[in-house]
Amino acid sequence: MDVIVAIDCMGGDHGAHVTVPAVLQYLAKDPQSAFILVGRKPEIEAELARLRAVPSARLRIQHAGEVVEMDDPPATALRGKKDSSMRVAIDLVKKEEAQACVSAGNTGALMAMSRFVLKTLPGIDRPAIATTLPTLNGHTCVLDLGANVDCTAEHLLQFAIMGSELVGSVDGKAQPTVGLLNIGEEDIKGSDVVKRAAELLRASDLNFYGNVEGDDIYKGTTDVVVCDGFVGNVALKASEGLAQMLGTSLREEFGRNLLTKLIGVIAYPVIKHFKNRVDHRRYNGATLIGLRGIVIKSHGSADVFAFGFAIQRAVEEARTGVLRHIEERMSHVQQTAA
Amino acid sequence: MDVIVAIDCMGGDHGAHVTVPAVLQYLAKDPQSAFILVGRKPEIEAELARLRAVPSARLRIQHAGEVVEMDDPPATALRGKKDSSMRVAIDLVKKEEAQACVSAGNTGALMAMSRFVLKTLPGIDRPAIATTLPTLNGHTCVLDLGANVDCTAEHLLQFAIMGSELVGSVDGKAQPTVGLLNIGEEDIKGSDVVKRAAELLRASDLNFYGNVEGDDIYKGTTDVVVCDGFVGNVALKASEGLAQMLGTSLREEFGRNLLTKLIGVIAYPVIKHFKNRVDHRRYNGATLIGLRGIVIKSHGSADVFAFGFAIQRAVEEARTGVLRHIEERMSHVQQTAA
Repeated sequence: MDVIVAIDCMGGDHGAHVTVPAVLQYLAKDPQSAFILVGRKPEIEAELARLRAVPSARLRIQHAGEVVEMDDPPATALRGKKDSSMRVAIDLVKKEEAQACVSAGNTGALMAMSRFVLKTLPGIDRPAIATTLPTLNGHTCVLDLGANVDCTAEHLLQFAIMGSELVGSVDGKAQPTVGLLNIGEEDIKGSDVVKRAAELLRASDLNFYGNVEGDDIYKGTTDVVVCDGFVGNVALKASEGLAQMLGTSLREEFGRNLLTKLIGVIAYPVIKHFKNRVDHRRYNGATLIGLRGIVIKSHGSADVFAFGFAIQRAVEEARTGVLRHIEERMSHVQQTAA
Repeated sequence: MDVIVAIDCMGGDHGAHVTVPAVLQYLAKDPQSAFILVGRKPEIEAELARLRAVPSARLRIQHAGEVVEMDDPPATALRGKKDSSMRVAIDLVKKEEAQACVSAGNTGALMAMSRFVLKTLPGIDRPAIATTLPTLNGHTCVLDLGANVDCTAEHLLQFAIMGSELVGSVDGKAQPTVGLLNIGEEDIKGSDVVKRAAELLRASDLNFYGNVEGDDIYKGTTDVVVCDGFVGNVALKASEGLAQMLGTSLREEFGRNLLTKLIGVIAYPVIKHFKNRVDHRRYNGATLIGLRGIVIKSHGSADVFAFGFAIQRAVEEARTGVLRHIEERMSHVQQTAA
């Protein structure tokens, strides 16, 4: 047993019906992992019973009576729900009883609680939300995705350092390339903050590629793409919306009449392979990066398959020591600046 | 003949080889339209000869010796290329010899020249770039897409007015709904500028829906989506990148082996119908809105089919009197404010 992950079993649209089976499936695959199921004990036990599973040394239950609702304002959740499954899961990371936690709950509350309980790493002003998006030949790590609406150039530099260490640690890539999201490749493009961030990035010891544009995210031009949380959030959600629209259109076309339905049956293996390949559920699990602990945010609507990827993400990050790497890099940056 | 459009025949990646045939095809469809082909006369004549066409009352050539290159800085193009096809096309709108112009050239140069030559409409501080994006059941008008990196709340209000009038005029929709692009639906979300813009929009006589998120663009939640140019540009390009990635993946899956290729042949009619439906070329033609004249920007890589839609857009806008509607609305806003 080399890593223990605390799971907020009550978070997300489906609560224990998704989180508990996802943990059981993951446990079966990864014999070195262990989990603490956090939430209302009766509900978790009922779910375990339904799945004919029992607690063990690798699977213990930690009762937490409250639940953070999807529409709870972060401040309310932070002050009022100290016995929530989300909060207790984070507390377990703080107490070092777990090396990471995963929640499909309310992002704002998760960020507020994590920041309050775990604090940020030395030299990091603000945590960011980082996720991995698919490209034609691999994937790109994009941050920030919505934690920070107004960013300074220094914040963007910190995001770049964190993203770089994240990719370096999890993907084992030495000196990942970093792109700065902008509206043109030329240095003169963009806002003053972005221009100044480019200067800082050029002066840093990161492998800075230069400006990239929105389409470079999916082209995989760089390993890391850095942007403020407003831009990142809009880009991610616009992508989700487009993917959904295209998926629905494709389904509608195959469902148009008897002939197209028949063609759909014939084409099914190819379409299925295509869908598997671009399945966004494989990319579920955003990292709240910059904290003194690993916190993974799953999509609220995640199913068992998707939630499994968020768990895998937590385990992988816990095993790599990414936080130590960020800390080392930040102390180096600060020494250089001093 | 009710509308004359000036075409920058030299702009874009393919110049006269695309622009001239697109005009001829459009002319054949729309007997009330007329065109001025602007650019190097010998090249345009050669293209007309290749297509067995001749100038006429509805198709005249206006010689312009220079060409704005894709990498010409806007200031250089503005000062140094007064005899360029782009500039002469805009001048024709200024002189009211044409009611609109279309260019597939360098966006920055087109905006700089248009602003310099045509000036903005009364009450409009900055022109914006507006485009139409497909939704499941129609389309949404999004602006700004990159003309304005830093926007105030007042600018966003002006964009909303322009977008609203554009949709109202071209689609004949009374009181189109307007969404403000944000990172959450709640009023407390977003930057100070966005929050203040929401207040202005609520106080206006526009049909303001409230905040929308990135995925709402493709859901078609509102008729108009307003954002600053940085965010809009990134969202648009990220969408382009994703669509390209998905298209390539789908092609690769059908091309995997002999069996999948065979399935591809069988599925071809359905896939083709799907592709037609979501073909981005149908949405080619962004409007530089807020100027005292209609200027349409085609994608630089547009083919004949795509460029035809930019031409259609120019003709439609010229026929609606959209600029007069914006002017009327702005004078009303100013009277209310005074």
